[in-house]
Amino acid sequence: MFKHLRELLIGSPLPTKMLKGERLDKVRALAALSPDALSSITYANQEIYLGLIVAGTAALNLSIPIALAITALLVILTLSYSQTIEAYPSGGGSYTVASENLGKLPGLVAASALLIDYVLTAAVSLTAGVAAIASAFPALWQHRTGVALVLLAIITLANMRGLREAGTLVAIPVYLFVGSYLLMLGYGLIRALIEGPAALADSTAIAAETIQPVTLFLILHTFSSGCTALTGVEAISNGVTVFKPPETRNARQTMIIMAVLMGVLLLASIGLTQHFGIVTHSEETILSALARHILGSGVLYFFIQITTLLILVVAANTSYIDFPRVASLIAQDRYLPRQLSSLGDRLVFSNGILLLAGSVAILIIIFGGDSHALIPLFAVGVFMAFTLSQAGMVFHWMRLRGPQWHLKAFVNGLGAVTTGITFLVVVVSKFAEGAWIIAVLVPILVFIFYKIREHYEEIGPQLSLSNATFPPRVLPPPRVVVPVSGLHKGTVAAMQFACSISKDVTALYIELDPDATAKMRESWEKWGEGLPLVVIASPYRSILGPLLQYLDQTDADHADGQAAILVLPEFIPATWWENLLHNQTAWMIKFAVLYQRRWHGRGRVVVDVPFYLET
Amino acid sequence: MFKHLRELLIGSPLPTKMLKGERLDKVRALAALSPDALSSITYANQEIYLGLIVAGTAALNLSIPIALAITALLVILTLSYSQTIEAYPSGGGSYTVASENLGKLPGLVAASALLIDYVLTAAVSLTAGVAAIASAFPALWQHRTGVALVLLAIITLANMRGLREAGTLVAIPVYLFVGSYLLMLGYGLIRALIEGPAALADSTAIAAETIQPVTLFLILHTFSSGCTALTGVEAISNGVTVFKPPETRNARQTMIIMAVLMGVLLLASIGLTQHFGIVTHSEETILSALARHILGSGVLYFFIQITTLLILVVAANTSYIDFPRVASLIAQDRYLPRQLSSLGDRLVFSNGILLLAGSVAILIIIFGGDSHALIPLFAVGVFMAFTLSQAGMVFHWMRLRGPQWHLKAFVNGLGAVTTGITFLVVVVSKFAEGAWIIAVLVPILVFIFYKIREHYEEIGPQLSLSNATFPPRVLPPPRVVVPVSGLHKGTVAAMQFACSISKDVTALYIELDPDATAKMRESWEKWGEGLPLVVIASPYRSILGPLLQYLDQTDADHADGQAAILVLPEFIPATWWENLLHNQTAWMIKFAVLYQRRWHGRGRVVVDVPFYLET
Repeated sequence: MFKHLRELLIGSPLPTKMLKGERLDKVRALAALSPDALSSITYANQEIYLGLIVAGTAALNLSIPIALAITALLVILTLSYSQTIEAYPSGGGSYTVASENLGKLPGLVAASALLIDYVLTAAVSLTAGVAAIASAFPALWQHRTGVALVLLAIITLANMRGLREAGTLVAIPVYLFVGSYLLMLGYGLIRALIEGPAALADSTAIAAETIQPVTLFLILHTFSSGCTALTGVEAISNGVTVFKPPETRNARQTMIIMAVLMGVLLLASIGLTQHFGIVTHSEETILSALARHILGSGVLYFFIQITTLLILVVAANTSYIDFPRVASLIAQDRYLPRQLSSLGDRLVFSNGILLLAGSVAILIIIFGGDSHALIPLFAVGVFMAFTLSQAGMVFHWMRLRGPQWHLKAFVNGLGAVTTGITFLVVVVSKFAEGAWIIAVLVPILVFIFYKIREHYEEIGPQLSLSNATFPPRVLPPPRVVVPVSGLHKGTVAAMQFACSISKDVTALYIELDPDATAKMRESWEKWGEGLPLVVIASPYRSILGPLLQYLDQTDADHADGQAAILVLPEFIPATWWENLLHNQTAWMIKFAVLYQRRWHGRGRVVVDVPFYLET
Repeated sequence: MFKHLRELLIGSPLPTKMLKGERLDKVRALAALSPDALSSITYANQEIYLGLIVAGTAALNLSIPIALAITALLVILTLSYSQTIEAYPSGGGSYTVASENLGKLPGLVAASALLIDYVLTAAVSLTAGVAAIASAFPALWQHRTGVALVLLAIITLANMRGLREAGTLVAIPVYLFVGSYLLMLGYGLIRALIEGPAALADSTAIAAETIQPVTLFLILHTFSSGCTALTGVEAISNGVTVFKPPETRNARQTMIIMAVLMGVLLLASIGLTQHFGIVTHSEETILSALARHILGSGVLYFFIQITTLLILVVAANTSYIDFPRVASLIAQDRYLPRQLSSLGDRLVFSNGILLLAGSVAILIIIFGGDSHALIPLFAVGVFMAFTLSQAGMVFHWMRLRGPQWHLKAFVNGLGAVTTGITFLVVVVSKFAEGAWIIAVLVPILVFIFYKIREHYEEIGPQLSLSNATFPPRVLPPPRVVVPVSGLHKGTVAAMQFACSISKDVTALYIELDPDATAKMRESWEKWGEGLPLVVIASPYRSILGPLLQYLDQTDADHADGQAAILVLPEFIPATWWENLLHNQTAWMIKFAVLYQRRWHGRGRVVVDVPFYLET
């Protein structure tokens, strides 16, 4: 039944040979790699608004210089990453670049920052998408956590099925978003030009009492929140291999197109919001208010909100491709459990997908489905990874010393310094709001990475046969002990099996109730298969203690260097609930004996002889 | 480490021979058997107050007739149960009496009612105790659930240790409670006589607006809540065996003393509350308000509240003795899982204790630590058990026809009829408030009892050797399959073991990645112990599917009536967390093969060969 349900939800297994890449042209590559970057203007906009509004509507004027500063950073990052594309045509993720050029520790720091980022990208995108749709349908606002979790479940399921064929499908919401936003903003610009300064009246009309003074801290704080507009800008440099040849040129061109779109969308939306003096209330996003102002509350407005939701869902989906892929890279380097590097039966890294989905769900629940609460965590990881990746590139050029390496190192150096400063600004200004969580989590993750690697390195030589000295002799048949709690068909089956593998079989009866022993001995005469029966008393009614003690004792008595093996009769009930009606003694004994670790190297062997109960 | 923690909390195991009863004199027997009955006046008082106050303070005058009616019921019950003592000197619980005299189904209904009652006694007593102490320390009021759960944890732990030596200790709070309440009520009576009718002024002064009219339904509703004062009255008749001889006479006398104390405490407290016109607010119990009125808010008041808490905790503790005992009786009759009938290593029914504690914790959490919310559930079960037990006694006398059997049957019949009517009143008046839960739960429990019994009855003949026809032949040595994922010390150890028990050993390699196969074959030459290696491709990367298929295929090919056995190499990591770093393939295979149920009767044997990893 479970299998059928699984097939219905996840689909039939796919053979390994279906795993092959498909090259994308620029139009489809842009759709595949840019949803995260393009959609980030939606929450960045909201963050800039929320950051400034605490100082009153007058402070909102600062959003334009802040947007310009972010755009400048975008230009630097684009130049910087286009050099990464050139240097790493096989895909230069922060983990790879930092590991190769800065060393293992910075690489692992970048890895942990990346994994955290992918989780946060999914969480922030989903919650921001829900905020967009809840702005249009206010009844959803109080159910944001639930709606976000439902969307998460849908994406997770889709990814467990494997999203191979979804390339074209994904392109639709991306271009819908870009197209509809460009049209809306263009129409808004035209209206602004026609209507002229009239709109400014709005702004002063709604001016509320100023709550906080405009300080440098407030500006930096808002700037650092707004920098989440830049998340995802590195995606193209990680995915150079998906482009049709010439890969490097196509990737660079696509990246520039993406950066231009990001800049235009950010500046135009911020500019129009300012021009029209838009403000909003706590249950509507600022972009929704802008759209409502430009388009009215009709069909067009709802269309904009729905495309916003869709691109944010697609952006969350990119985490489902990147997180399992990076986790699998790290697992191949043995810094994460090896299960994360194995393909599931739909050719996806199922374990990575489930790990991601679980982490995102926890974040959404803890932060109550509020993207604003998640942003401080998000920005820290993003800029940590940016800085490490750019700094790695500087070392890359210094090591390589190719043509124009000074210039190239300078460009990446500029990127590293600006993102590094932004990183510090984010950490300081957002520390109390949640950045500390990342500051704690990254070292913990790096520590775990090292412990995992240590484990795998330690077991290697323990398992290796290269210097092993096995006794070439054939082992003697084992001494067998069969614990019996009573005489019935299950016990007899176990004893018969024991006799088939050894001549040295002893039955062991642990006496809990002395009155029952005489009866046991009596039936033994008839059904004991002629085997010796050892009875040991258990005054404390424990099965395990006397059993383990007896096994050690009998090994010591024989002194043949062997550990007696156990043959356990085990009932298998017909239905799962019937398991509750039986003492799980067999499993308990098995677990205790196997995990007792008394016999290093060669352990005590445990044999299960099942006996099936029927209904 | 777990073992040490366990020993610190629960204590060292105790030998079975320490399990012997100790006879109690009347003073100590009263303390041991009456806490539930005596303490129930505390919540019954509160229920009568809460039931009437909804009709305004004037309606509170009805509390005296209601208390008198409850006292009349108490007299009937005492007479009725003293006959049970006579008829069942070995202890006549509702389950025993109803099963023996009315038949199995009524017996099981009584059993389920009893188990539910014990759970509710503990839940109501603890929450009522917390209400008493939170009346004195209002800061605790909002943390009632938490405080109740802490108390629950303490009692559970104490009972897991075994409370054998606690007999005298328990007597202290019981007599403190009886003594301090009698003194307080006596002092209150004297004050009432001296002060005369002056107190009545209070009553009218605080008279609030009437919210509900005084209807018959309201009176019956309040009466049925107040009847919880009678809970625990049957305890002495269940525990006749703990008395010193002459057991029957001592038990009857003790029961009469207990009933007198219950009547006095109930009538005096209700009467004084009325006389002084006490009312209270939602965060103080009515008994606390009465104590405060009589004693002031000084040390004596706090002392009263603390003794109230203590006797209620002791009352909750009686469930820890009765629930596991009754559950073990039912389990011995094979209507509950047999684990409930086995003594733990501290000579207590540990499984029953844990089942009780878990159920009580769930109730306390669901009902927010509010005893008032639990009462409707409580009263139903109590009166169901009363009625069945009394009705059983009627049939007992009719069957026996001893001297004066008419009179005796009449007394028990009176008990059965009055408790039966009360039962109906409770069900009807409290149905929507929670009584329906019990109405649903009892049939479900009875159904489960029957299903469990059915299971045990079905497996008996399947296991029995009495008509078994075993082939007396010795089984041939098994055909062995060793699944190997690679060649290392663990695999070699497993193969060597396999060779020691059979000449027919095949290694099975499931090919996930065709490139790795050549390398595998190469090392097989060197380390394969000369065994045949079968390679099967798994295009869908599943281990389990191809393995199970191969096993079935090889059995079909050999057609020797045998099922090939599996020898599994299994890593045992040094610490628990390291298990997360390995695919739990061995456990997965073991589980799948054992639960595959393909081989009825004689199953496919699975052998674990452990290989220990070290740190």
